[in-house]
Amino acid sequence: MRTLITEKLELHRQKHEQKGRLLVSCPDQPGIVSAVSTFLFEHGANIIESSQYTTDHESGRFFLRIEFDWKDISANLDQLKSSFEPIAQSFHMTWSMSRASDLKKLAIFVSKELHCLHELLWEWQSGNLMAEIAVVISNHETAKDTVEALGIPFHFVKANKDIRQDAEKQQLALLEEYDIDAVVLARYMQILTPAFIEQHPNKIINIHHSFLPAFIGANPYKRAYERGVKLIGATSHYVTNDLDEGPIIEQDIERVDHRDDAEALKNIGRTIERSVLARAVKWHLEDRIIVHENKTIVFN
Amino acid sequence: MRTLITEKLELHRQKHEQKGRLLVSCPDQPGIVSAVSTFLFEHGANIIESSQYTTDHESGRFFLRIEFDWKDISANLDQLKSSFEPIAQSFHMTWSMSRASDLKKLAIFVSKELHCLHELLWEWQSGNLMAEIAVVISNHETAKDTVEALGIPFHFVKANKDIRQDAEKQQLALLEEYDIDAVVLARYMQILTPAFIEQHPNKIINIHHSFLPAFIGANPYKRAYERGVKLIGATSHYVTNDLDEGPIIEQDIERVDHRDDAEALKNIGRTIERSVLARAVKWHLEDRIIVHENKTIVFN
Amino acid sequence: MRTLITEKLELHRQKHEQKGRLLVSCPDQPGIVSAVSTFLFEHGANIIESSQYTTDHESGRFFLRIEFDWKDISANLDQLKSSFEPIAQSFHMTWSMSRASDLKKLAIFVSKELHCLHELLWEWQSGNLMAEIAVVISNHETAKDTVEALGIPFHFVKANKDIRQDAEKQQLALLEEYDIDAVVLARYMQILTPAFIEQHPNKIINIHHSFLPAFIGANPYKRAYERGVKLIGATSHYVTNDLDEGPIIEQDIERVDHRDDAEALKNIGRTIERSVLARAVKWHLEDRIIVHENKTIVFN
Amino acid sequence: MRTLITEKLELHRQKHEQKGRLLVSCPDQPGIVSAVSTFLFEHGANIIESSQYTTDHESGRFFLRIEFDWKDISANLDQLKSSFEPIAQSFHMTWSMSRASDLKKLAIFVSKELHCLHELLWEWQSGNLMAEIAVVISNHETAKDTVEALGIPFHFVKANKDIRQDAEKQQLALLEEYDIDAVVLARYMQILTPAFIEQHPNKIINIHHSFLPAFIGANPYKRAYERGVKLIGATSHYVTNDLDEGPIIEQDIERVDHRDDAEALKNIGRTIERSVLARAVKWHLEDRIIVHENKTIVFN
Repeated sequence: MRTLITEKLELHRQKHEQKGRLLVSCPDQPGIVSAVSTFLFEHGANIIESSQYTTDHESGRFFLRIEFDWKDISANLDQLKSSFEPIAQSFHMTWSMSRASDLKKLAIFVSKELHCLHELLWEWQSGNLMAEIAVVISNHETAKDTVEALGIPFHFVKANKDIRQDAEKQQLALLEEYDIDAVVLARYMQILTPAFIEQHPNKIINIHHSFLPAFIGANPYKRAYERGVKLIGATSHYVTNDLDEGPIIEQDIERVDHRDDAEALKNIGRTIERSVLARAVKWHLEDRIIVHENKTIVFN
Repeated sequence: MRTLITEKLELHRQKHEQKGRLLVSCPDQPGIVSAVSTFLFEHGANIIESSQYTTDHESGRFFLRIEFDWKDISANLDQLKSSFEPIAQSFHMTWSMSRASDLKKLAIFVSKELHCLHELLWEWQSGNLMAEIAVVISNHETAKDTVEALGIPFHFVKANKDIRQDAEKQQLALLEEYDIDAVVLARYMQILTPAFIEQHPNKIINIHHSFLPAFIGANPYKRAYERGVKLIGATSHYVTNDLDEGPIIEQDIERVDHRDDAEALKNIGRTIERSVLARAVKWHLEDRIIVHENKTIVFN
Repeated sequence: MRTLITEKLELHRQKHEQKGRLLVSCPDQPGIVSAVSTFLFEHGANIIESSQYTTDHESGRFFLRIEFDWKDISANLDQLKSSFEPIAQSFHMTWSMSRASDLKKLAIFVSKELHCLHELLWEWQSGNLMAEIAVVISNHETAKDTVEALGIPFHFVKANKDIRQDAEKQQLALLEEYDIDAVVLARYMQILTPAFIEQHPNKIINIHHSFLPAFIGANPYKRAYERGVKLIGATSHYVTNDLDEGPIIEQDIERVDHRDDAEALKNIGRTIERSVLARAVKWHLEDRIIVHENKTIVFN
Repeated sequence: MRTLITEKLELHRQKHEQKGRLLVSCPDQPGIVSAVSTFLFEHGANIIESSQYTTDHESGRFFLRIEFDWKDISANLDQLKSSFEPIAQSFHMTWSMSRASDLKKLAIFVSKELHCLHELLWEWQSGNLMAEIAVVISNHETAKDTVEALGIPFHFVKANKDIRQDAEKQQLALLEEYDIDAVVLARYMQILTPAFIEQHPNKIINIHHSFLPAFIGANPYKRAYERGVKLIGATSHYVTNDLDEGPIIEQDIERVDHRDDAEALKNIGRTIERSVLARAVKWHLEDRIIVHENKTIVFN
């Protein structure tokens, strides 16, 4: 089965082999687009998609995402980056330039509820998630068979609030061992410590089963039922040290009514959680998200 | 213009002239539907729509809404009610029976933002709101011309938090004068006192400009912007003494993104507020809502 | 794994062990609800959910679905049906009465695109599809491993338009062998002959990848792209001899824009197809659908 | 009331006083963004919003929309356009450059159903439609009072299929008299002749009450009811000589069920028609739409 998967992903990679991405964040001032686009043009790169956004506060900030086609990208990206450095400095840019075909390495953390994991695996098998799923880590054995059947390493790490530090030590070691670029909490259900989070700023994606900021914390479906809401939702966000307060990437909702008890809400919610998380992860993998002041700019 | 309106409403009334509605709430036990439907059948009434719901908690409660067709309803409803009394008592029912063609009298409270008022007036003119809009009360003059042009009485009652008691005294007098059945707060923006609210339990419908329980209280759009949500919403609910905590009747949302500032959210939100409030008022007028333990059962 | 699945389904079955369902379709006349509910009450059955609908055409037709709780249902359902027969006859009813815990036997037909099959399997494993998936039949081998890993029989039946009759002969034999109650075409991509369809009226559920009646027939995503629509959709319907013209059970859509080419539409559409088909199958399994004059009444 | 309206629109205009818009369509080739952005930068204009799209067909075509801030725009736009001409020629551009504060002149055509007209008027009064509503033309008198109360000229032009040519002659004269930039058919219900349409290519916006291409032509709600669809919709499109086949600008849908008869669908549909048309007109007014090969690119 591994072969089949690699085949589809491989096809996608090849399709994007000459594609590069540039992400820029800097103070707004005239001439940025001109400088960047002229730079790319002069180096023979063709802009195929470009999105920008400027905050209109006094201290306006400028954000730019460009996808470009460049035949020399596989050999000469580092050189292009060096040449761009002076421009970046003159505009005080925070920036990154990367190859679309370089797959990010994902670690998926999961507990006993597997619907979000299944969705990610399925989208990945279909070639829609351009990532390498490097490892799945869980404090239960439930996912083991499914994960290993796909040839993905599975690690059981016992975790609960009493042994949090010890568990995170093992987890961090695994993230290092597998050289992980981003962590997806696919209904992991354990709180991470600040020590863990600080090592991966804007790299840990969580799915919370409510339309935040409603129902922060535990048991959102039960509380949604008790409040008698007519919509339930799910929110995917980057994890920060404030529980469920990190930058929101994506949200969606579904309609419910008085006949739906907490169990029914949970069931309906699963479908929303799956698609919201899958979209958020996809956008992260495609470098479509910039975080600014606890909010996301999503160029999708 | 008054004539035109009455014409459309009058057409609707005539269409529903033989239609009655029965609302029942009682402890669940076998035989309720049998007793009620047999009663109606034996009195010559034909059930045209019937909805029921039973809570599945230990102390199960049973809710029923029936629309029936009865040729004698205009003359003999009181008699039918008397005959039903023994059944109601034997099942410990809270119940009501009414003619669909008896229009409820509405008072609409409004401030300076008129989009919700406009929507209600428009739906009413189109014959979709089966109500008599008996009076519009405002602490501003903004709506005066529009309201009076339709032949609806408009009353200016100065109101702010310093003169709340005095204002409410005038408002309550107007509600009595116009013999009001329900109050719609169409973006009224003033808090009502417990004294006011207790006189109209489950009769005051508010529209709050967020998907509750998110952003309870003031400035929800500003706070939604600051939180960086990807959806904004509106909630219509019955007013209780807990601010924005009353039984939710209807909610809806619209998608937004990082480019939408607080002003844009307000604009997008207006459309949601309008339709959510209009639906809630419609369901209230058609006796489709039962309130139970701070939640609504909406038979729509 | 088979054990795990059975466990969840078994739990659901036990939860519904005393639950019965009654479906009725007959000419409208006063007294039907009274007769039916009194019958159930007198036999000790308690109505827990009831939905009805009457067409308001001249020759009004009445439709009723009742879920009831009856402690004797596992032993005495046949007896209850016999007792109901006189009532059914007096109202000229088409009707059925069944145990919720009697799982329907499904055959799933599939081709190479597996997303719909996966969704059904996943919902089934989660205990949300109260069915026995008795067999999966395909004209490709792609699904074989996944299906057999769950302990479900998989049959390869070569099929294309040149050998249609021969293929259907084998398929019909399998349906008989596995004693199938309903067939789900989960992106099967082959047209069935009238001979096949007529043997299973309102028992074959298809998913078409457009919001019908738009884009009937082949290549709907390609044609949607060419027309420049801003929404794409999926439709689940019962199969009749008129291609894509059968009674619609469920539809849904997703927003797209000019950047989405035919390939992107296909990708986005997959998610809609999955959820639309899963809902339709669920409603069919729970006897929530009545077909009347090429339309469905869905009591959900 | 005229004063009030002008006040709000005036505020919006002032907010956009220095804003310009550039729309470009040309064969794709490297260097376009660089050339355009450098041109604007060198003339002292600051890009505040930029969207681009390239078709990925063999003969790739490039589309660009830029909003820029330029302090000299009110006095010197013509000069800027002249300076841009050589660039435009070298890339074989079809292009336009305009001031955001120059309000387009709209003619609204209406029949007896006024919900779409009301929505447009309301959005305009709220300052959301940056246009001058120069004239309303109708083949009925129904809208006269509402329109004239807002100080907008109203013209009755008798129209039906027997006197089409004569009617259009009068209408075209009015369009010329009022110097109209775009025509909105807000449920006008009359077919326009090729002669009329050809004089205003991509300038006539229609609302059709179905999700096209389903239910092209007359009575879409009735036909939707007969087909038993579970969704109804509305489509706004530019008018071409092929009935309901013009480039789609926007679509939306609402969920319905078996209880909704043709009349109910019409009622539910009204809300969709209103918002779909209002969005389409808004995007047209803000120069967000480019038509290419019977499709729209909407930069929203």
